[in-house]
Amino acid sequence: MKKQLLAIYWLLAIPFCLSAQNPNSDSAVIRRMFDEALLRGKAYPMLGELCKTAPGRVSGSANAQKAVEWGYKTMNDLGFDTVFLQPCMVPHWVRGDAEEAKIIGKRVKEKVNICALGGSIGTGKKGIKAQVVEVKSIEEVEKLGREKVEGKIVFYSRPMDARKIYTFAAYGSCVDQRVWGAKEAAKHGAVGVIVRSMNLSQDKHPHTGTLVYDDSVQKIPAAAISTEHADKLSLLLQSEPELQFYFRQTCETLPDVLSYNVVGEIRGTEFPQEYVIAGGHLDAWDNGEGAHDDGAGCVHSIEAVRIFKALGIRPKRTIRAVLFMNEENGLKGALQYARQADSLQEKHIAAIESDRGGFTPRGFHLEGDSGKIELVRQWVKLFEPYGLHDFANGGGGADISPLKKSQKGILLAGFVPDSQRYFDFHHANTDRFENVNKRELELGAASIAAFMYLLTQYGY
Amino acid sequence: MKKQLLAIYWLLAIPFCLSAQNPNSDSAVIRRMFDEALLRGKAYPMLGELCKTAPGRVSGSANAQKAVEWGYKTMNDLGFDTVFLQPCMVPHWVRGDAEEAKIIGKRVKEKVNICALGGSIGTGKKGIKAQVVEVKSIEEVEKLGREKVEGKIVFYSRPMDARKIYTFAAYGSCVDQRVWGAKEAAKHGAVGVIVRSMNLSQDKHPHTGTLVYDDSVQKIPAAAISTEHADKLSLLLQSEPELQFYFRQTCETLPDVLSYNVVGEIRGTEFPQEYVIAGGHLDAWDNGEGAHDDGAGCVHSIEAVRIFKALGIRPKRTIRAVLFMNEENGLKGALQYARQADSLQEKHIAAIESDRGGFTPRGFHLEGDSGKIELVRQWVKLFEPYGLHDFANGGGGADISPLKKSQKGILLAGFVPDSQRYFDFHHANTDRFENVNKRELELGAASIAAFMYLLTQYGY
Repeated sequence: MKKQLLAIYWLLAIPFCLSAQNPNSDSAVIRRMFDEALLRGKAYPMLGELCKTAPGRVSGSANAQKAVEWGYKTMNDLGFDTVFLQPCMVPHWVRGDAEEAKIIGKRVKEKVNICALGGSIGTGKKGIKAQVVEVKSIEEVEKLGREKVEGKIVFYSRPMDARKIYTFAAYGSCVDQRVWGAKEAAKHGAVGVIVRSMNLSQDKHPHTGTLVYDDSVQKIPAAAISTEHADKLSLLLQSEPELQFYFRQTCETLPDVLSYNVVGEIRGTEFPQEYVIAGGHLDAWDNGEGAHDDGAGCVHSIEAVRIFKALGIRPKRTIRAVLFMNEENGLKGALQYARQADSLQEKHIAAIESDRGGFTPRGFHLEGDSGKIELVRQWVKLFEPYGLHDFANGGGGADISPLKKSQKGILLAGFVPDSQRYFDFHHANTDRFENVNKRELELGAASIAAFMYLLTQYGY
Repeated sequence: MKKQLLAIYWLLAIPFCLSAQNPNSDSAVIRRMFDEALLRGKAYPMLGELCKTAPGRVSGSANAQKAVEWGYKTMNDLGFDTVFLQPCMVPHWVRGDAEEAKIIGKRVKEKVNICALGGSIGTGKKGIKAQVVEVKSIEEVEKLGREKVEGKIVFYSRPMDARKIYTFAAYGSCVDQRVWGAKEAAKHGAVGVIVRSMNLSQDKHPHTGTLVYDDSVQKIPAAAISTEHADKLSLLLQSEPELQFYFRQTCETLPDVLSYNVVGEIRGTEFPQEYVIAGGHLDAWDNGEGAHDDGAGCVHSIEAVRIFKALGIRPKRTIRAVLFMNEENGLKGALQYARQADSLQEKHIAAIESDRGGFTPRGFHLEGDSGKIELVRQWVKLFEPYGLHDFANGGGGADISPLKKSQKGILLAGFVPDSQRYFDFHHANTDRFENVNKRELELGAASIAAFMYLLTQYGY
């Protein structure tokens, strides 16, 4: 069966793939897409606009609404066939106006940099002061038990594993502390939680990110501490285990707010009822500009569709740029998108997500039917001249994941840029437009356009 | 013959390559090398030291001498078996204390950012003011001829081709303007030359770099102008072709100075008289810190050798870190190194050069015997887990190129990191330590250590 499919594929593909002279060959079209992105690209100025117009566009905020309006206007101005909004209710968490922390030891009293984790409750106006118990894992909290944890601030200090070449693997094996740490510590009577920031560099920037409470357990406030200050705290605890930590944060969760996904599309010429989408998420944590996370993914997606238009390529299948709302703390936009695709019986054959930054493209991680993925891998040689080699099996991304249930046989593809610098910026105030390189961003948009093109031509 | 070699290679290589369980398998050793670089690496702090102790270490300068002393001390402190200096005479060009430029039109008088090209003569105290003739190439100057060029400032404005994915290709097809532009313009009576900076971003930083005069032709002063100001000048020339340009620079060439290559080595256990070297160049243009160009290559090389030592790996062949002097404007150190290797009959089987920045590693470009290169390519799978896929044929690098003549059968390997950001920094005041990412630098050092290891084990 697989061999048969392969044979059919090649019969279809050969005329497009192998003739470099033919301006409509796949390789020639892809070359034109890269040229368009590199010579006349709009990804970079679009990202600048988004970051400067609507920084810190956390779900429910005024800037999130500005970002929605920006996305709608931008795709309309670019002349996409249709641009529309998908309403959805989203959480509305606000950081508040105060955030401070101190290490208080016998001989030391030092301010340190923290930021509340997204979704955390506040500490009350007076803040929380308590002894610190340092742990390397949630399991360690369980082992220590109520006797050693009650009334204390639990300090999760396990660092990301620098040995992992793909830094998302290092993040994945560490982020449980941030997501579940507060809930688990509260079970044993802790009064607060401090988590070492999820980044690989040694610096003073705390990195926020969502936590998840359990409604059956007391909620306690939780904050991230910068890596430099986390290491300092660890060091001081060695000589003075009974030292105290003070922190104060005035964050809170307000009632849900109406917000929107923004979708722009170009109709397919042969199979308009079949969809190939590329998306990123429009919301971003409030402490930066959401440049790499995930302004880059938004403009990658818009730019990929724009490239079709600029080159006069009418796709066989309908293509969409989808700007999802509320990836960071709820996924409400993604769930709404999947629900609507389902109820309108829109057949999604493939969804690409860009949510790993605007760095040099390295490939796509693929999730779908293993036989069909092998066919997609035949396209790798078309990408190699542009430096993309990594087409491993792997997760497509959070925003497209709900499509897996409703869309049988869909291909999910996660765009994979170089990951080395990503966590320097992720969820921190360093995630600014100035930390995105123009060419790296443009190459990502072209890579996504090229992959969309092949999917619209040959299906999946 | 090739097949026979392949068979022999595999007989030798299989026991090392395929046993992941064996801690001495190639893949296990390479894994340990990456772990050492990422967990206990010294490349990043070493680069910080070099950049801050000896910024702008152009050949013949006091800071170049400081860099020599730094290299010598650093490798001694690391406990390499032998560290020595190789004396050589180098040019001594100085920028002087003044550098300024203005566009002078009927309705506009605007300061612009220039910097003298390395090796350029000065303009005299009063500077040069003349009409501008804009050209896109040296050929265009020849076509225009003396009639249209005499008494004028020639402005070379051809930009680097943004479509080229590998940015060194874009540089290579453009840099003739900077290197030969002044000489060619002078032949036709030009009084000065302005060259659009060799970079791909739109910014205000002029990028220097060497020019080459012809002793039989009048020398005229030449400077680079920032890309933003170059585009401005082009635009203004369209409406006012007769506008004038003024520039003043007080650079000059002083008598040659004694300087040094710095070499550190660990002796081989089985074939101590065979050498595998890794090198970068110690000199750097005076206007930045020489972080990517080429502090990165220097610390890559030192760190690669240090990794052997830290892991207790005694190489079968002698390995060396070579810090070459005067790559930028003379190659005197490289010539001296090759001459000495020849006269001491040191058999160099392979030389690796890192002179393309401290970015995420993508591979090595290989130059040598085509049959043997195919054997080296069998190692690619050992590098793929670390993101290195590019093992194309290509130039090894300027500093190791003189070895080609004296060392029959040598493999020259140019370390290839991701090239997208390199020209943002190359030869400009932006080439600072702060623009180097720690992990990207460390991965480069580990990649070079791994390649050295395979070469020391299996030869070439």
